[in-house]
Amino acid sequence: MGFHGVFPYLVSPIDSSGEIKADVLARLCEDLIQAGVHGLTPLGSTGEFAYLSWPQRRRIVQIVIDSARGRVPVIAGVAATTTADAVAQSREFERLGCSGILAILESYFPVSDEGVFAYFSAIAKAVSVPLVLYTNPNFQRSDLSLPIIDRLSHISNIGYIKDASSNTGRLLAIINQVGERMKVFSASAHIPACVMLIGGVGWMAGPACIAPRQSVELYELCRRGSWEAAMNLQRRLWALNQAFAKYNLAACIKGGLELQGYAVGAPLLPQAPLPPDGIEEVRRALVAIGAL
Amino acid sequence: MGFHGVFPYLVSPIDSSGEIKADVLARLCEDLIQAGVHGLTPLGSTGEFAYLSWPQRRRIVQIVIDSARGRVPVIAGVAATTTADAVAQSREFERLGCSGILAILESYFPVSDEGVFAYFSAIAKAVSVPLVLYTNPNFQRSDLSLPIIDRLSHISNIGYIKDASSNTGRLLAIINQVGERMKVFSASAHIPACVMLIGGVGWMAGPACIAPRQSVELYELCRRGSWEAAMNLQRRLWALNQAFAKYNLAACIKGGLELQGYAVGAPLLPQAPLPPDGIEEVRRALVAIGAL
Amino acid sequence: MGFHGVFPYLVSPIDSSGEIKADVLARLCEDLIQAGVHGLTPLGSTGEFAYLSWPQRRRIVQIVIDSARGRVPVIAGVAATTTADAVAQSREFERLGCSGILAILESYFPVSDEGVFAYFSAIAKAVSVPLVLYTNPNFQRSDLSLPIIDRLSHISNIGYIKDASSNTGRLLAIINQVGERMKVFSASAHIPACVMLIGGVGWMAGPACIAPRQSVELYELCRRGSWEAAMNLQRRLWALNQAFAKYNLAACIKGGLELQGYAVGAPLLPQAPLPPDGIEEVRRALVAIGAL
Amino acid sequence: MGFHGVFPYLVSPIDSSGEIKADVLARLCEDLIQAGVHGLTPLGSTGEFAYLSWPQRRRIVQIVIDSARGRVPVIAGVAATTTADAVAQSREFERLGCSGILAILESYFPVSDEGVFAYFSAIAKAVSVPLVLYTNPNFQRSDLSLPIIDRLSHISNIGYIKDASSNTGRLLAIINQVGERMKVFSASAHIPACVMLIGGVGWMAGPACIAPRQSVELYELCRRGSWEAAMNLQRRLWALNQAFAKYNLAACIKGGLELQGYAVGAPLLPQAPLPPDGIEEVRRALVAIGAL
Repeated sequence: MGFHGVFPYLVSPIDSSGEIKADVLARLCEDLIQAGVHGLTPLGSTGEFAYLSWPQRRRIVQIVIDSARGRVPVIAGVAATTTADAVAQSREFERLGCSGILAILESYFPVSDEGVFAYFSAIAKAVSVPLVLYTNPNFQRSDLSLPIIDRLSHISNIGYIKDASSNTGRLLAIINQVGERMKVFSASAHIPACVMLIGGVGWMAGPACIAPRQSVELYELCRRGSWEAAMNLQRRLWALNQAFAKYNLAACIKGGLELQGYAVGAPLLPQAPLPPDGIEEVRRALVAIGAL
Repeated sequence: MGFHGVFPYLVSPIDSSGEIKADVLARLCEDLIQAGVHGLTPLGSTGEFAYLSWPQRRRIVQIVIDSARGRVPVIAGVAATTTADAVAQSREFERLGCSGILAILESYFPVSDEGVFAYFSAIAKAVSVPLVLYTNPNFQRSDLSLPIIDRLSHISNIGYIKDASSNTGRLLAIINQVGERMKVFSASAHIPACVMLIGGVGWMAGPACIAPRQSVELYELCRRGSWEAAMNLQRRLWALNQAFAKYNLAACIKGGLELQGYAVGAPLLPQAPLPPDGIEEVRRALVAIGAL
Repeated sequence: MGFHGVFPYLVSPIDSSGEIKADVLARLCEDLIQAGVHGLTPLGSTGEFAYLSWPQRRRIVQIVIDSARGRVPVIAGVAATTTADAVAQSREFERLGCSGILAILESYFPVSDEGVFAYFSAIAKAVSVPLVLYTNPNFQRSDLSLPIIDRLSHISNIGYIKDASSNTGRLLAIINQVGERMKVFSASAHIPACVMLIGGVGWMAGPACIAPRQSVELYELCRRGSWEAAMNLQRRLWALNQAFAKYNLAACIKGGLELQGYAVGAPLLPQAPLPPDGIEEVRRALVAIGAL
Repeated sequence: MGFHGVFPYLVSPIDSSGEIKADVLARLCEDLIQAGVHGLTPLGSTGEFAYLSWPQRRRIVQIVIDSARGRVPVIAGVAATTTADAVAQSREFERLGCSGILAILESYFPVSDEGVFAYFSAIAKAVSVPLVLYTNPNFQRSDLSLPIIDRLSHISNIGYIKDASSNTGRLLAIINQVGERMKVFSASAHIPACVMLIGGVGWMAGPACIAPRQSVELYELCRRGSWEAAMNLQRRLWALNQAFAKYNLAACIKGGLELQGYAVGAPLLPQAPLPPDGIEEVRRALVAIGAL
């Protein structure tokens, strides 16, 4: 039935010398799988992909695949400014055994629609695993227009999209346009229950990293059509997303995981760690939903 | 139980000499009431408030109140750059017999949070009817921050908010913050069914002007908790909102009403009328939902 | 030789009942003329045009024309969202005896290039006095593209443009494009000496209201090609423009004039008056250039 | 007397296998030095730093330093999202023999003022060569505020700033603030003659790569205070900057160099090469100034 459900965006725990803290990351993966998540996503925004070297990225994906041991799919984030780099990353991640690629286009100068199409279709052609298109107009200089999304949806292994725009109506427009050819995942900028209502298949988001059981429960309620119960839970979970929107995403999730006993550290400098106010806000949000 | 349900944003039909076409507007109001709408809203964005003189605005509100004859509430749009002007408009609309005020802050220079609070609280103090706060960060230079919305929610006759930001998560944050003190209406930039799911009480929007029966049906399905049936209808109605987002709002709704036989004319110059492509898109969208 | 030199943007002094303080405005006009300014501009941004009713605007233009008594040209600001309103305002100002029109396009919805052209050309056709096109992308939702500026420059009584974008390179592109057909005035967002260097003919700006003698001196130095002396003066004058960019424009100039003994009052609510810090900053800037 | 004059932003010629075309780059450097430029800047925006791997960047800096043979200073671009990466790049470029560092802050999440200060001061501390701060609010998510620029100007080897904002008034504000502590270079978004007039010391820009003799001539005229002659030349040179602002910067300069006989190739995919219209526009601009 394809990818679906709750895919936490994993943080990238790194020590002061730049080494990936393999044991911390592996324990986090194991605990998330035990909590029932449906997949794992290393190297999303929350995973600080934009702040990591290629050897660091490669190591993280390797650790996550090894930890998952095939129990849940691993969708690895590929982000590049050039097509050639994106293709090389994707091939290596497929070789390492990932189940899918979360494809991100970075850019410095604006990219034309044709350039956007060329980038994503080149990645799709280079690998055999499914692609999840990622678009985040807030942090990226390019955007995926509806016509380009439609064109890309006709490529056989481009089967998913994750839109981080906060404009939920855009997701419904995409669903109306691409029909069964492409499935939609929510981001933390959308209300997951709303995206499930309009036809989404799940969500990929940082907050699921610190509230995995509650996220899975919310997903199950939505799947069963228990919308009132889902909204009761969703309302309480939303405070976490609000904190997430207010602070640096990586800082927020790393701060929450530290509270839960994972020594994931702070985001890489010059990013600021979660400030005391933010720690307090995340702590309260976690306690309120029983995640601390 | 307060304002709730479907409030079409009325267009402002004006002839070439600047006269309001009273008969066209009155017939539209009558037909909308017959179609079951729960209220009428003259002088929203779709009503081209920003393009009308004060005598024209006053005349429109008078016609709508006369047409409604108390059968449904009339919530009149008040928009001004100065507090004094907003207070004067509001008092006059209350004297004319409106049921509520849709309060809009126009600005040229940026307004501080204190200025925003002072503006809306002065209107609330000047009238006894309920206020609906309106915010549209796309077309206005001011925005209502969450702390200011919270402060305003403690004023007794500020009971509603309509946010036209397209960020549905923001509505859930507002609901979580203000609880029972303030009720939320959707705008056409949100998916109405999603806003109903998260706790909204209805919507105020231009498309309801050209699809009133379908809008009322959608509202009833949401109220009954028939979410699957609601989404079936919502999906088909969304094409209308997409056209609405693509073209000038007033041009789009006026174009649709012309297709339905209302001689509402074109938007005021230098606004462009709906282009042939847009007319065709609106026509197809109306036919598809049985509204033409 | 056409309009040239220093045109202060006049503030609009209004008492608490909404009456224009005619004596204060007349004295300011007289003093500015005595200081050597080359013209007067009521109802620019600094003049809070967006916050005034039509009777207030009409009265202000009348007072300024009466005060000038033909000694310097008066270029009156016309701002509207509809073509019809702009044409009516312009005709009335011409009837009152203004020497030129500063034409401003207000909008709520985005305006197409054709709409922009139609608006300005309709004003030009309606009057016989020269037009100054005004564009301010920071505070307005429309902008004048280079091709539209070029088309408008071929209309005989559209002879000037004032661009408030802060992008001085855009002014050189305009000058290269329109040649002798249109002359360029600087705004306070540009460095006047730079605009004079690249071929401008003067400036229309709020700060000239509180530093008229220094502004005229700067203009004379630029005209004579004494660029080093000009820059010595310009450097000191720039602190005033920086304060101007930091605070609400009307608040800043009204605050400075109050310090100089003109009872112009505060900007209209909900605009905030200049805060104590701003008053101190403006005072220091005025003292430093000998304007207080 | 420190860095001054014309520093062309070098393009990065790369073959289809990702190899730097050393001979093409070396010939370009030699010809620019023969044309009289005052320095060379590899890895600016025009140099596509955001699209190159670390080995490619390192190789380019090496080639440029080798080509310059000490005849003119080489200021190498350092761009990173993390402080650690920026420090490592800077140290290596100093080891290779560069004369200065052009320091660029890349970011994915917004950076606080403290983070911005920490990033640049860490680079300054890590090397002994002078730093040129670079800021480009159009293509970067961070910006250097005036207070942070002031703080950084007190660090001894931070001696220059290049602001690519198009807001020339901001440069004068910086000059007024930092006095002799920091010198200002123009970018191609500013009019170089204007920046020289207000006190700048030169410019670092892509167009100087294809019009080096004309750029040096303009610089000499400005230095001599021959402002009228300078403006005559500046006006004609500006057409090149306009093309530069209209198309992808790297595509534009690479396209111009190809016309001049340098086999620099196209920008890296998915960037588009200069389209036929753009080639024609650049050709006309080069012919008009005698650069083709």
